[in-house]
Amino acid sequence: MLTVNYVGDRTLDVRTADQTEPRDGEVRIRVAYTGLCGTDLHILHGNMDARVERPLVFGHEMSGTIEALGAGVTGWSVGDKVTVMPLDWDGTCPACLAGNEHICQNLNFIGIDSPGSLQGLWNVPAETLLALPADIPLDHAALVEPVAVAVHDVRRSDLTAGQKAVVIGGGPIGTLIATVARHTGAEVVVIEIDAQRRAQAEELGFTTLDPSASDQVAWVEEWTAGTGADVVFEVSGAAAAVRGMTALAKVRGTIVVVAIHPTPREVDLQRVFWRELRLLGARVYQRADFETAIELLADGVIPTDRVITRIVPLAETADAFAELEAGRAMKILVDVQAGA
Amino acid sequence: MLTVNYVGDRTLDVRTADQTEPRDGEVRIRVAYTGLCGTDLHILHGNMDARVERPLVFGHEMSGTIEALGAGVTGWSVGDKVTVMPLDWDGTCPACLAGNEHICQNLNFIGIDSPGSLQGLWNVPAETLLALPADIPLDHAALVEPVAVAVHDVRRSDLTAGQKAVVIGGGPIGTLIATVARHTGAEVVVIEIDAQRRAQAEELGFTTLDPSASDQVAWVEEWTAGTGADVVFEVSGAAAAVRGMTALAKVRGTIVVVAIHPTPREVDLQRVFWRELRLLGARVYQRADFETAIELLADGVIPTDRVITRIVPLAETADAFAELEAGRAMKILVDVQAGA
Repeated sequence: MLTVNYVGDRTLDVRTADQTEPRDGEVRIRVAYTGLCGTDLHILHGNMDARVERPLVFGHEMSGTIEALGAGVTGWSVGDKVTVMPLDWDGTCPACLAGNEHICQNLNFIGIDSPGSLQGLWNVPAETLLALPADIPLDHAALVEPVAVAVHDVRRSDLTAGQKAVVIGGGPIGTLIATVARHTGAEVVVIEIDAQRRAQAEELGFTTLDPSASDQVAWVEEWTAGTGADVVFEVSGAAAAVRGMTALAKVRGTIVVVAIHPTPREVDLQRVFWRELRLLGARVYQRADFETAIELLADGVIPTDRVITRIVPLAETADAFAELEAGRAMKILVDVQAGA
Repeated sequence: MLTVNYVGDRTLDVRTADQTEPRDGEVRIRVAYTGLCGTDLHILHGNMDARVERPLVFGHEMSGTIEALGAGVTGWSVGDKVTVMPLDWDGTCPACLAGNEHICQNLNFIGIDSPGSLQGLWNVPAETLLALPADIPLDHAALVEPVAVAVHDVRRSDLTAGQKAVVIGGGPIGTLIATVARHTGAEVVVIEIDAQRRAQAEELGFTTLDPSASDQVAWVEEWTAGTGADVVFEVSGAAAAVRGMTALAKVRGTIVVVAIHPTPREVDLQRVFWRELRLLGARVYQRADFETAIELLADGVIPTDRVITRIVPLAETADAFAELEAGRAMKILVDVQAGA
């Protein structure tokens, strides 16, 4: 079978590999689709070399069907359509013992810390599986993981119907957060500096704001009749966005830090103090978020045709990364079986 | 009567002034003691010139007795021992309408935005009064306001008995927060760079840590068996403390931003994200905090003899500020009637 490997030095290599048997408690999945995400790009850029072993088969947004069951696996059958929540926690660290297994202090993130789904056949622990409804197409189902991220972020924010939310950053995750927030019943504005991304968000029915051309604070003040936004999602990863985010939230409003900020950022703590703001970190997801994400996809809430820019065969994964890097694509899926 | 005025240009002036009659709904208080605080120093330094009108009679931590009632005031009698919660909200802004009157978007902070208690007789709205128990000495009662700040900060953190809290900064408010946190049943460590302040905290029974001499992250890791602190209070106002605070908190731990940070600070948002931390701004207090503060003082929980460094007559207020500025004092009270 073919596998897509990060081999270091900004290099990706498609290799053939022998399939291995699923161990006790594992299942073998025939991977259908794998989505490429920003974290994969970070890996490819070498930003995570201190963390990842090379070669690494990456990929952690996927769909597929069960092809074989390892010893001791019950409740699953060959042919089941599944996705994987790629988190493998130790169950014994303080975070796990406090019920926060998803951010286990020794988390094995499958696809980053251990081999991922950019391979034709993939063995994973049965506990990571979630069943997919029969009528979800497998390409759509490859979006469950990023949708679960958005569901987690919105759930963590305590956003409720009728509230107003600002999403800073109109990339794939920002778009999904905006979609989930709107589905919650909130009014949403997307702040995005890139004209093409603003156009994409507008096609999805969102109001957008160009922070380089308009006074976002004044706009939000007017939009909220002087109150400020109930929730601000920082999804851009930009230092300037962080400097400005605190001015957008209402008294006791919530700011959710979704993006990865590799270096410390300047934050207006005076505003945090003055308005008694709440800043929350939000990372990955919990099982309930995956279940909600599957429902949202099954119910047609997620505009899959807009989010999935393109589907490429596995051999073209490197080209797909180049396209992602250029910032012209939302989500590119790899058809793992095509040409395998 | 004598009044202590900030007249601009880092200058304080003791002047005589005529007393005015309390208006409808106001009471006239014979001020007993007024505590000097960091905000008063900021005013004196000119840092708040954009906000304060000059001359300003400052002072907002006080105790006294009612000397006269304006028209329409009921429920109070001449001679009642009182303190004042120096917040005057508009009741109509979005923050007020959402129940956050204490951080009203148009707050009149009495003693900053309008005349304060560094004067022999002071007229205030009757709604700002809180009754003092008969057996609290009036000098101790001048601490109600700063204790209420500490009560608010600890309440906002959701700290519970058995948890572990780090207080960064061992000045007056840090010491009071540590005291309230310990009274809540938490274990507390105070991180303080100044040796004299560390000694003061140790005399009050707190474990202390010198961040310039020891690895505070390693220390907290060991103290919490690898978990991290449940709550971190940032009371130092120092940029370095902010850079380091996120590394001290447990997964889903809370950081309360108490100090004033006049310029944006670098925050490790990667850590906020990674551990799903919660950063909360906490400002002033609500009526329940004042009531709890009065109880704590009445019950002898607050080490008033350690917190009150010195009591000076009103004519020596300028000297007292100089002593505060030198950082050698905790809390200095002005005996407003002495020499009046």
